[in-house]
Amino acid sequence: MSSASQVNQKTVLVIHGPNLNLLGQRDPGQYGHMTLAEINKDLADRATVLGITLDVFQSNHEGAILDRIHQGIHNSHGLIINPGGFTHTSVALRDALDVYSHPAIEVHLSNIFKREPFRHHSYVSSVVTGTICGLGAQGYLLALEAVAQQSQSEK
Amino acid sequence: MSSASQVNQKTVLVIHGPNLNLLGQRDPGQYGHMTLAEINKDLADRATVLGITLDVFQSNHEGAILDRIHQGIHNSHGLIINPGGFTHTSVALRDALDVYSHPAIEVHLSNIFKREPFRHHSYVSSVVTGTICGLGAQGYLLALEAVAQQSQSEK
Amino acid sequence: MSSASQVNQKTVLVIHGPNLNLLGQRDPGQYGHMTLAEINKDLADRATVLGITLDVFQSNHEGAILDRIHQGIHNSHGLIINPGGFTHTSVALRDALDVYSHPAIEVHLSNIFKREPFRHHSYVSSVVTGTICGLGAQGYLLALEAVAQQSQSEK
Amino acid sequence: MSSASQVNQKTVLVIHGPNLNLLGQRDPGQYGHMTLAEINKDLADRATVLGITLDVFQSNHEGAILDRIHQGIHNSHGLIINPGGFTHTSVALRDALDVYSHPAIEVHLSNIFKREPFRHHSYVSSVVTGTICGLGAQGYLLALEAVAQQSQSEK
Amino acid sequence: MSSASQVNQKTVLVIHGPNLNLLGQRDPGQYGHMTLAEINKDLADRATVLGITLDVFQSNHEGAILDRIHQGIHNSHGLIINPGGFTHTSVALRDALDVYSHPAIEVHLSNIFKREPFRHHSYVSSVVTGTICGLGAQGYLLALEAVAQQSQSEK
Amino acid sequence: MSSASQVNQKTVLVIHGPNLNLLGQRDPGQYGHMTLAEINKDLADRATVLGITLDVFQSNHEGAILDRIHQGIHNSHGLIINPGGFTHTSVALRDALDVYSHPAIEVHLSNIFKREPFRHHSYVSSVVTGTICGLGAQGYLLALEAVAQQSQSEK
Amino acid sequence: MSSASQVNQKTVLVIHGPNLNLLGQRDPGQYGHMTLAEINKDLADRATVLGITLDVFQSNHEGAILDRIHQGIHNSHGLIINPGGFTHTSVALRDALDVYSHPAIEVHLSNIFKREPFRHHSYVSSVVTGTICGLGAQGYLLALEAVAQQSQSEK
Amino acid sequence: MSSASQVNQKTVLVIHGPNLNLLGQRDPGQYGHMTLAEINKDLADRATVLGITLDVFQSNHEGAILDRIHQGIHNSHGLIINPGGFTHTSVALRDALDVYSHPAIEVHLSNIFKREPFRHHSYVSSVVTGTICGLGAQGYLLALEAVAQQSQSEK
Amino acid sequence: MSSASQVNQKTVLVIHGPNLNLLGQRDPGQYGHMTLAEINKDLADRATVLGITLDVFQSNHEGAILDRIHQGIHNSHGLIINPGGFTHTSVALRDALDVYSHPAIEVHLSNIFKREPFRHHSYVSSVVTGTICGLGAQGYLLALEAVAQQSQSEK
Amino acid sequence: MSSASQVNQKTVLVIHGPNLNLLGQRDPGQYGHMTLAEINKDLADRATVLGITLDVFQSNHEGAILDRIHQGIHNSHGLIINPGGFTHTSVALRDALDVYSHPAIEVHLSNIFKREPFRHHSYVSSVVTGTICGLGAQGYLLALEAVAQQSQSEK
Amino acid sequence: MSSASQVNQKTVLVIHGPNLNLLGQRDPGQYGHMTLAEINKDLADRATVLGITLDVFQSNHEGAILDRIHQGIHNSHGLIINPGGFTHTSVALRDALDVYSHPAIEVHLSNIFKREPFRHHSYVSSVVTGTICGLGAQGYLLALEAVAQQSQSEK
Amino acid sequence: MSSASQVNQKTVLVIHGPNLNLLGQRDPGQYGHMTLAEINKDLADRATVLGITLDVFQSNHEGAILDRIHQGIHNSHGLIINPGGFTHTSVALRDALDVYSHPAIEVHLSNIFKREPFRHHSYVSSVVTGTICGLGAQGYLLALEAVAQQSQSEK
Repeated sequence: MSSASQVNQKTVLVIHGPNLNLLGQRDPGQYGHMTLAEINKDLADRATVLGITLDVFQSNHEGAILDRIHQGIHNSHGLIINPGGFTHTSVALRDALDVYSHPAIEVHLSNIFKREPFRHHSYVSSVVTGTICGLGAQGYLLALEAVAQQSQSEK
Repeated sequence: MSSASQVNQKTVLVIHGPNLNLLGQRDPGQYGHMTLAEINKDLADRATVLGITLDVFQSNHEGAILDRIHQGIHNSHGLIINPGGFTHTSVALRDALDVYSHPAIEVHLSNIFKREPFRHHSYVSSVVTGTICGLGAQGYLLALEAVAQQSQSEK
Repeated sequence: MSSASQVNQKTVLVIHGPNLNLLGQRDPGQYGHMTLAEINKDLADRATVLGITLDVFQSNHEGAILDRIHQGIHNSHGLIINPGGFTHTSVALRDALDVYSHPAIEVHLSNIFKREPFRHHSYVSSVVTGTICGLGAQGYLLALEAVAQQSQSEK
Repeated sequence: MSSASQVNQKTVLVIHGPNLNLLGQRDPGQYGHMTLAEINKDLADRATVLGITLDVFQSNHEGAILDRIHQGIHNSHGLIINPGGFTHTSVALRDALDVYSHPAIEVHLSNIFKREPFRHHSYVSSVVTGTICGLGAQGYLLALEAVAQQSQSEK
Repeated sequence: MSSASQVNQKTVLVIHGPNLNLLGQRDPGQYGHMTLAEINKDLADRATVLGITLDVFQSNHEGAILDRIHQGIHNSHGLIINPGGFTHTSVALRDALDVYSHPAIEVHLSNIFKREPFRHHSYVSSVVTGTICGLGAQGYLLALEAVAQQSQSEK
Repeated sequence: MSSASQVNQKTVLVIHGPNLNLLGQRDPGQYGHMTLAEINKDLADRATVLGITLDVFQSNHEGAILDRIHQGIHNSHGLIINPGGFTHTSVALRDALDVYSHPAIEVHLSNIFKREPFRHHSYVSSVVTGTICGLGAQGYLLALEAVAQQSQSEK
Repeated sequence: MSSASQVNQKTVLVIHGPNLNLLGQRDPGQYGHMTLAEINKDLADRATVLGITLDVFQSNHEGAILDRIHQGIHNSHGLIINPGGFTHTSVALRDALDVYSHPAIEVHLSNIFKREPFRHHSYVSSVVTGTICGLGAQGYLLALEAVAQQSQSEK
Repeated sequence: MSSASQVNQKTVLVIHGPNLNLLGQRDPGQYGHMTLAEINKDLADRATVLGITLDVFQSNHEGAILDRIHQGIHNSHGLIINPGGFTHTSVALRDALDVYSHPAIEVHLSNIFKREPFRHHSYVSSVVTGTICGLGAQGYLLALEAVAQQSQSEK
Repeated sequence: MSSASQVNQKTVLVIHGPNLNLLGQRDPGQYGHMTLAEINKDLADRATVLGITLDVFQSNHEGAILDRIHQGIHNSHGLIINPGGFTHTSVALRDALDVYSHPAIEVHLSNIFKREPFRHHSYVSSVVTGTICGLGAQGYLLALEAVAQQSQSEK
Repeated sequence: MSSASQVNQKTVLVIHGPNLNLLGQRDPGQYGHMTLAEINKDLADRATVLGITLDVFQSNHEGAILDRIHQGIHNSHGLIINPGGFTHTSVALRDALDVYSHPAIEVHLSNIFKREPFRHHSYVSSVVTGTICGLGAQGYLLALEAVAQQSQSEK
Repeated sequence: MSSASQVNQKTVLVIHGPNLNLLGQRDPGQYGHMTLAEINKDLADRATVLGITLDVFQSNHEGAILDRIHQGIHNSHGLIINPGGFTHTSVALRDALDVYSHPAIEVHLSNIFKREPFRHHSYVSSVVTGTICGLGAQGYLLALEAVAQQSQSEK
Repeated sequence: MSSASQVNQKTVLVIHGPNLNLLGQRDPGQYGHMTLAEINKDLADRATVLGITLDVFQSNHEGAILDRIHQGIHNSHGLIINPGGFTHTSVALRDALDVYSHPAIEVHLSNIFKREPFRHHSYVSSVVTGTICGLGAQGYLLALEAVAQQSQSEK
């Protein structure tokens, strides 16, 4: 736990898209009862175990998310993103993720394929490494494991 | 007109979406000659009559509108929104309105069904209480009456 | 309230389309508990206040509705129509309304955008002045106010 | 590690669909260099750690896979399936999985959203608990973790 | 009831497609509480009354069903088939039924038109004599009566 | 066979839609050689056997059929309808049948799925109890048996 | 011009569909300035020249038009129909015309292919002998000539 | 019949598109038994009666037809065109006809709406004055009458 | 090999459509390295063996190809055509081939189903005897064998 | 013709899909009068001439066909397949053929482009070397020649 | 300006497609008032400045344009084409341009995206270097500059 | 170069949309090697030559771009915009540009018609003056020339 070892740690950028700040109060049947703070706490615990530094960010602003991904090109080694409603409408988000060259995983809490048709198409799925959906908050933890392992083999 | 009575007043959030700040100079044949300030003035007068407090907001930033709806979940009793061009493209806006549990009415100044095909579909219509369109500035006043009555019966 | 003043009153034609005679017994979750007689009573009360003469008509026959609209071209100053199931299937109804040159408003009790996809398209919306939907029986009253004001400015 | 403890172990059914017996020789750029035997070996090792009994099955016969899922309704506690080409064409497979009431996860080695359009739609996604795709052989291990945790909370 | 009279009896082939072996445990709200054995018992009783020999078959294997229809071309006089999920996906099943020249009736327990859109199209309907759907287990008995009468007039 | 027993008989409303008055002279290859009078005679004979009172009606007027279904809500216990060309175009008919709460069966003489594509979709199928199609005039008799049995279990 | 020669005259049924009673006051840019009475006068004059008896009918009721076509099967030798808005929505009208076995011509005053997309498809065109559109009131006269000649060759 | 009167005659350009030179030997059930020479003879006779000069042209070359229409802008007063297969595929033909400012009528021998779906759409219909289809060779003669009358009123 | 025997030889028309004159220099990965002259040489050699007279033609002009097919109706006994880009756009070409009553085979050098979607549909395939595609220059030779055999059985 | 030379012979796998065992009794107008045994006899004769060993297989079971293609990867040098109804529905078959790296040709007896629309698309065409369709039983022989030549050049 | 320097000049082929010879008289609101001769004059002046030799060609014949592009492969260094109506319908034109390996620019005088939907798709855009549209006659001059610069860097 | 002359200079607003700040590091095969700073430098140099003042702006925030266009209505004389990913998804951007009444040109560095289908449609193209695409960084310079000339003629 010395600063030297920290210097060598990988940094993973975690981005929560629009409306995810409402977790816990928004349609619990669909999204579960955990708040975003609780999910971030679980992610932080798992990151400690895996020896990974987390950089967590939530915004309802598409432009702010684009800016953060751009920064992450240089100061992160992997990315986890739940794009929320931007999943289905933002070509700009797709373009930003397409430039991001490290492992990147798209996460959805709910099974988007059980919902309205307009949620079945993602602009993001075809430019990220992979997708995990419908596994609730655990989906984030599995994504973190996957990024950890894949960015390991990039070294 | 005492402050005590004001404490008991219902608050209605009024949101004007992108480009609506241009009202009066943008295509008057389609949108009329009234400016946004004039519409807001009429709304304020009618609110006084109905004993309602208004919270009016205009922005061209989708994220800023989402933030404001989120705040409105706790500090308003009804909502009127003219989502402008976001009507047809924003799933994130739809998701935010879906969480909003008080009466909510979508207003369009022009009759969107008389315009280009891409304006005929609204992501918002199926998650709000109702829609008023094509009645010009009066549409806002009718929406205010509807919200006033419906939030009354929520008490 | 002299007969002379009545001569100057505007007449508004109110048309209830197919199956609306069943209101109150048909799916109250969707259409509410009011009967058509109760709705017409509320409309009559509001018309008195606004100084308007009402001409109310219900039919399950498309042809009978067309005939009535044709008559209304000459003996009414505004029109409110809930076209029921004809909304989505009748080009002939659209053509009749297109000839009607006074203010005309389409009303739906339920929010048709929350229902089956075939109810999302209206042949009527693009030839009327405006549309009010999802506000239940109050929608009729708001429509009456709008017609009253708009036919005023036609004078 | 006594047989008594094994009696209490959960059983997870793992089904590999058509053509997956060819792994290692089929398009390694798309599916990786691991053979199915190697993937099954990794799954067995992880199962031992998680205290889970695996029941692994591969077939190119749709009917044989349906039979196996039917049996699994009574003698398994979770299911992982890579339906291969049946993903996009089999309503019968969807129906069988819809009856299966324990946690079930769909896995794809490749990112099906980066491939031909007919691979973008899955009949299976909307009847399983969740989907993991594009993470290669690691996807199976993450699925096993998710099933283990979810069937735990079913107890 | 002598064997001689049996020699003259018509034989009707009854084919139950994939997942129908699960009847009784699969979604009773959709498919009812009767098991396949109970349905077959009712069919057998009605066949005795009508003087018909039944040949009943269930399989989850598309190829096995094709083989059976091929055999039935020569050793049956009518056919009842509930193709289950193959209804919507199998051109091969359609081709096999197209060769079958005796009366053939497609049966569905549930009303497929009240379900997901992909169940609204049947490859089979346009090559059989007729279709009965949405009448539950009784649908099989009505189909048997229809085949009995129609194969009578073929004699 | 006393009038008292008749009082207890169930009444079944039989509705023949547009152009069915032409049966016998319209395309016999598609619709058979029986006239509507002959079909009604067969239905009457079968009704006598089943102890059912029939109420038979044919019209080319959509509105007249809606009126009759509305009356049938209160004075019938079951309904059989061949909606003819209205099958594919009338949302108003669908709405009327949706209010009808007793068993209701849609009948088509011809196999509509073997005909033009615009005949493959029925607005009615998803709001009735079930559908029988392609079995010619016998389809009416089978429908009568089904309504008889189903209204029996409603008692 | 003796009554004897009149007995031998062919009768042509002329049907004007919904809203055509409004000709002259409805959108003259689209439909011209002639009234329906003037068109019928011109038709009568031309019929006299051609030695044809006319039977002219206008209705806004689809059912009434179907009834009239049914009668015309036996008491006319040719048919001219401008189905108005029913052109694009009525399968029942198509079915009625399909039974009509004499020459039948569809006429449209305006060029429907220059108007809204939903007017580009006609349910009627593929079951009549031919179509004349966009030639204004003259289209009726040309249709009368064509029917006269074609029914001549039927004799 | 003096050369002076001829100078004042209107000239009508008649264009027969690709494959029409084969008339008489191509599918007589669809196109009739008359040859193109016979049709042109009938047109010439009628033109004499109407006092019109004809300019007749047939080509299988799209470019040659465009050239001829261009010339016709200056040296004709009306146009009749049967565009054959170019009807459904040539935007260039549409553009040429759009420049042509005199009366122009599209003619089809067969009823194109009774044939393959790709023949149901015409690029030409919305830029000509009107369309006559399905009336065989008589269609040309009716077109000639219509052009004669319409170019008369242009004078 | 006497001139007398040649008189009895069958003639096969070979048509190469637009851009095929560029073979050898156009995208050899798609079309191979052979020039059109080399392909014609191979066809000539094979024709000699089969006792067939060839009539070979290349053009970039659709009209010229139509003219040639028209001539071939009378002076050829079979036809091989590679329609190039006209395959996907020319209804006129389809119409010409539909009149051609001898065996006709469509050939494509490349596998058009592996290329852009707009090349997957052929207007020609459904009016010729058969299609050979994706077999390179050998496809022409196989087509010649097929035409030779099929025109033999026409005799 | 010694066994040594046979050892060097190429082996071609010939697969006949579902319902092809019915050839001769199934719709001879579409598929011809030859039985499958006769077709296989002709293939065997041609194979002897070409010095090729045939391995012929027919099955109605998709899974059995997949198994056979998998085996053929190692013990054949070319493949001819008539996938019957699986052509249009099986992604799994497509995937198996995509792994097969030797020359492979898809054969259809009938011209699938002249039949129902759902037969116009093949999942197989874009992963095989080429396609021959509409040439009846001769199509198999031409395919054998093509495979023979192409596998020659692979040596 | 010696002939030697001319030998080194680049040649740019300028192709004007169908109907462009009508410029100036065709819909000036859409295409401007300049004639084609005036546009060619401006191009010639700019070419002189840029030291480029122009080869200008207009035709209404698709085949003639293909021939010219084929010649241009060897005797030009760049190409500017306004394909007119062929833009939207000619795969053959696309194929010809795809072989052309020098810089090629598609020009449209009007903004095709403001016009009918069928003008929004170009077969040509995806095989040329770039597109300039909506800038009127200046578009040609900008295209010439771009070709000049790009062919410079090819040297 | 006096301030007086500058006062008279036209101002052109140049807007670079989302992700364009990454130019040079994002997919150089698609977008070239120039950075945004280098492009802006070239634009500035050309502006100096043309006597134009530039106002350059880049943002990943849709709202910020809308704000800037609104300001530009009053303080610019022309506009060049590369909307990046917003091109295909932003109706709000379209609405803002629709209000902008000076010359406006859409620029794309890459040829968007050679890329994914969802990039082929632009919401912006039909409300700007014109479009230049696929000409790399030079496209900006040509756009500047066009704006300069067009705003000149506005004076």
